[in-house]
Amino acid sequence: MLALIEIAAICAFAISGLIESVRKRMDIVGVFTVAFVSAFGGGTVRDVLLDHRPFVWVVHQEYIWLVLGLTIAGPPLLRLMQHRAAVKLMQFTDALGLGLFAASGAALALVAGMPVTVVVLLGVITGVFGGVLRDVLCNEIPVVFQDHRPYALCAFIGCWVLVGLHTLEAPTWLSLTAGVVTTTGLRLLALALDWKIPAWPALRKPRS
Amino acid sequence: MLALIEIAAICAFAISGLIESVRKRMDIVGVFTVAFVSAFGGGTVRDVLLDHRPFVWVVHQEYIWLVLGLTIAGPPLLRLMQHRAAVKLMQFTDALGLGLFAASGAALALVAGMPVTVVVLLGVITGVFGGVLRDVLCNEIPVVFQDHRPYALCAFIGCWVLVGLHTLEAPTWLSLTAGVVTTTGLRLLALALDWKIPAWPALRKPRS
Amino acid sequence: MLALIEIAAICAFAISGLIESVRKRMDIVGVFTVAFVSAFGGGTVRDVLLDHRPFVWVVHQEYIWLVLGLTIAGPPLLRLMQHRAAVKLMQFTDALGLGLFAASGAALALVAGMPVTVVVLLGVITGVFGGVLRDVLCNEIPVVFQDHRPYALCAFIGCWVLVGLHTLEAPTWLSLTAGVVTTTGLRLLALALDWKIPAWPALRKPRS
Repeated sequence: MLALIEIAAICAFAISGLIESVRKRMDIVGVFTVAFVSAFGGGTVRDVLLDHRPFVWVVHQEYIWLVLGLTIAGPPLLRLMQHRAAVKLMQFTDALGLGLFAASGAALALVAGMPVTVVVLLGVITGVFGGVLRDVLCNEIPVVFQDHRPYALCAFIGCWVLVGLHTLEAPTWLSLTAGVVTTTGLRLLALALDWKIPAWPALRKPRS
Repeated sequence: MLALIEIAAICAFAISGLIESVRKRMDIVGVFTVAFVSAFGGGTVRDVLLDHRPFVWVVHQEYIWLVLGLTIAGPPLLRLMQHRAAVKLMQFTDALGLGLFAASGAALALVAGMPVTVVVLLGVITGVFGGVLRDVLCNEIPVVFQDHRPYALCAFIGCWVLVGLHTLEAPTWLSLTAGVVTTTGLRLLALALDWKIPAWPALRKPRS
Repeated sequence: MLALIEIAAICAFAISGLIESVRKRMDIVGVFTVAFVSAFGGGTVRDVLLDHRPFVWVVHQEYIWLVLGLTIAGPPLLRLMQHRAAVKLMQFTDALGLGLFAASGAALALVAGMPVTVVVLLGVITGVFGGVLRDVLCNEIPVVFQDHRPYALCAFIGCWVLVGLHTLEAPTWLSLTAGVVTTTGLRLLALALDWKIPAWPALRKPRS
């Protein structure tokens, strides 16, 4: 079951890379790289920071082939993505992926003995840095920094729930589940109710 | 004393990220990330290259909260930044931070037994890569590569002074201090006297 | 002999960084950094992923000076680059460098006991990520993702040849040579015959 959810999440993340890179008119090399980085970038950055090996995509070689398959099956998939139902499904899977990746990242940081603030930070990084690297490779300002919708914030709150339950010595399965449910639930609520994060007022140029 | 200078330097670096990200109309997630990366990116890149753990921000969790505080207190701080005196203070603290970060980076590389050229390189990276990553996340060409004012060069010279004194078996406190003073002093001089680095002449497109 | 080829390849990669950064009107700091990252970025990313130390540029300090020399000798070199013969020579050296770097990256991953798909991936990364990082620092979409000419694909095929021969228990020198020859040969053929990778059709914006 969990493996299936993970694969669905990887697909959702990879497809977000697919969409962005095809829009930029990249060739197969660019589309594959951007899809791969979208799916595995967050976890890889976390593992490099934690000095943790092996990476998910080294243990599961088959995931590399999965992304390659998605890259080659791209155009029909993307045509599908233009249907309203597919967009909804993607948003749902993406929210699930965010919850799953953030919780797994935080859990790994807990095992590595990190202090709680760092655990939360690494959880959020695992959830969102795939998207950040995708946008850097596509020469855009990362969407997650700019779209004023709660995304990283949901993961932030979900990771605190996980860490809080862990501190209260709740069993691991409970804190993990609560973390995933909080993150994914908040994200779906934010989408459904169209929540916005307030922006700072524009700045005048400093008179230096 | 040193801890206070370090905190001032972290603040100066984080505020440079704050200014840039607010100018790009980012939301709180973007502003925090860019400020955090500006402050700790250089040291983190150095530590990843040296395979050195734990990171500064893992040992000092409170620094994460400091950057979060700066993020939330952003607008009044930035309005302050528009005053001439504040800009001067920022330039001074930033020069101090450059000296401090570069010297600490070089010192760490020396301890890790790196050869001297690599020590200097890692010192400069520690001083300037926070700003480089800040600009990459903001989708700009890094300022430090392009503004034709000595910044990385000051750190380069300061690190050679540190390495030179270390080779002459000067006591550690002396080589460290000399490194910081050289880097910071050169940077302040460069600002005061408006030094410029000469540019290469423009290139015609190659007839390939 | 091999050391000479390696130096030629490093020069070709560094010069590609030189050309791009001078075109962007960077100062000496930017030109050096971009040239350095073009030459050593691929290998460094591979080593960070494999958790392998020391880096090439730590073992061979003199390569840092080589890139610094190229940076300072930049303008005459670049004027030279505008001659047709020099462009041809650069393309040849670059193809050689791609083959050499990809094969050496794959070989290192084999020694580290990686599964075959990961070996190929790391070989390609070693060959092309210097260019990717160069373009990210220059605020461009990486050329290798977008120019619809086989480049990474040549390295991909060359690395499979290397891995295939290794699996058939061919001697190391043979699989290495075959890998380099395949990659470099395919790249030169692609240039000579002007091969193109087909693109995906443009996408309409999803109606989300």
